[in-house]
Amino acid sequence: MTVTVLNAHGRSLLERRLPRWVEPRWFGSPEELLALAPGAEIGWFDTFDFGHTIEAYHLAEKAKWLNTMAAGVDSFPLDVLRERGVTFTNGAGLNAVAIAEYAVMGMLTIAKGWREVVRAQERREWLTDAPGTMSLHGSRALVVGAGGIGGRIASLLRGLDVDVTEARRRAAPGVLGANEWRGALGEVDWVIVAVPSTPDTGRLFGPAEFAAMKRGAAILNFARGAVLDQQALMAALDSGQVGAAFLDVTDPEPLPPGHPLWNYDQVHISMHLSGRSQDTLYRLGAERFLENLDRYARGEPLVSEVDLVAGY
Amino acid sequence: MTVTVLNAHGRSLLERRLPRWVEPRWFGSPEELLALAPGAEIGWFDTFDFGHTIEAYHLAEKAKWLNTMAAGVDSFPLDVLRERGVTFTNGAGLNAVAIAEYAVMGMLTIAKGWREVVRAQERREWLTDAPGTMSLHGSRALVVGAGGIGGRIASLLRGLDVDVTEARRRAAPGVLGANEWRGALGEVDWVIVAVPSTPDTGRLFGPAEFAAMKRGAAILNFARGAVLDQQALMAALDSGQVGAAFLDVTDPEPLPPGHPLWNYDQVHISMHLSGRSQDTLYRLGAERFLENLDRYARGEPLVSEVDLVAGY
Repeated sequence: MTVTVLNAHGRSLLERRLPRWVEPRWFGSPEELLALAPGAEIGWFDTFDFGHTIEAYHLAEKAKWLNTMAAGVDSFPLDVLRERGVTFTNGAGLNAVAIAEYAVMGMLTIAKGWREVVRAQERREWLTDAPGTMSLHGSRALVVGAGGIGGRIASLLRGLDVDVTEARRRAAPGVLGANEWRGALGEVDWVIVAVPSTPDTGRLFGPAEFAAMKRGAAILNFARGAVLDQQALMAALDSGQVGAAFLDVTDPEPLPPGHPLWNYDQVHISMHLSGRSQDTLYRLGAERFLENLDRYARGEPLVSEVDLVAGY
Repeated sequence: MTVTVLNAHGRSLLERRLPRWVEPRWFGSPEELLALAPGAEIGWFDTFDFGHTIEAYHLAEKAKWLNTMAAGVDSFPLDVLRERGVTFTNGAGLNAVAIAEYAVMGMLTIAKGWREVVRAQERREWLTDAPGTMSLHGSRALVVGAGGIGGRIASLLRGLDVDVTEARRRAAPGVLGANEWRGALGEVDWVIVAVPSTPDTGRLFGPAEFAAMKRGAAILNFARGAVLDQQALMAALDSGQVGAAFLDVTDPEPLPPGHPLWNYDQVHISMHLSGRSQDTLYRLGAERFLENLDRYARGEPLVSEVDLVAGY
């Protein structure tokens, strides 16, 4: 029997479908998680309080496989897992559908000036002029980091007749490589950032990248806040060089109430809600976890193993 | 030479491309329009003040062909045009792309609870729970009135992996007919109304239709306000039977500041802006008008002729 530590919130989804060799230990509180973690061979330690999750990772000295539903794993102790030889699986791709829908919503709300309509409605005022008159149809977009999330965004945008260019770390037919996408910045109305958060992608967008954008174009960030140089972004917004920013992620998070980014009317801050604005994440995560239990038993590679050196 | 009365706002788009047989008379004010209308054989009388446009229609006793960019023509004097034997062309389809984008935006903002995010941002408050957790992906929609606009909405929604059922006046393979769609109301998460406004479609949705919907489902109206019985809608919202309404159109328009619909937090009022939230309508309308001038000269049927009996 293999001791497997799991959040009791998932019990109804998982319990009857666990293989016989699994001995589940359900935690219902952070204290129970921390008490159970040291005995776990397999662990799925996600909780609402990320600090306890990380503490459990450090305590899980017997763990052979740890799983999370998070897609970005830059805040996990990857070095510790590497030293201990732990297999680490993440939730990459599970939230791609939800984040891509959020990205489309963000672009449409900017294009149509929807926030002004919301405000007018709160004033009970009937607007006679449209506050936004852009169409996505026929516009051009660059998706920087066209992996699971960025690729899904590109696919949805093509369905809306947006002319989409994708960029990835490695160039491929029809896909720009890591050093090629900067040349396309001046040609697009929308720049959508969905790169993984690694040391390579810190401040990927600074003064030079904002200056290279088409004047008045919009940037949307679904990666990590640190991927954009926020000081440079604010300067580019002040000058009108960047027309609008939709920031699902910021640096830091939460953004403090006094942070100057809140003052920009052309900035939309969505509080890292994009991936959570769905009701299917846990169900999808449970399906993947059950499949991975079978693979684990057969000694096969697991779905969505994190490369503990590359960090994603 | 054929006297053709046109809005001076379109002069730069049209003047150099008019056929030689056209004698353009440009109006720059409502007064000029009313002075020129009686002499027009061809007229494109759209102005920002709809009342003057209609007055010009009545004055245009010599007109053989009148054109508008409006899609819904229920407020035009169709009986007068029919008596006089005027050919009447409208803007059906010209704003379909913009309205369909607006419909997708409306559904996404409801699904993700975006208005709550806008409000939190105005309070400089970082939300930790997603105010909306629906996905369009995998949801089901019914488009009632799948013509130019409704068909485009259906097409965009399929690109977002929504399971879409279309309904038109006449049933066709895969398309429900005028008396079949009510049976589908209970199966869908989204009801999107895009029927033409005719005497047949007044109060198409009343207490029975709202009661037949899946509890908590949303309704979106891009047709005319009178297509929904607003009293019945408010009752269905009060009881929770209808979960949300996105009303691009209301009855009356503008909605008076004291109207009770403004009080509903689950109602989104977009002030008939959907078709105008684009910058290409006039250009598209000018292209169609120029094509129709050629057809007129050849005695061919024009693109987008209104059926003056059916009313669309």
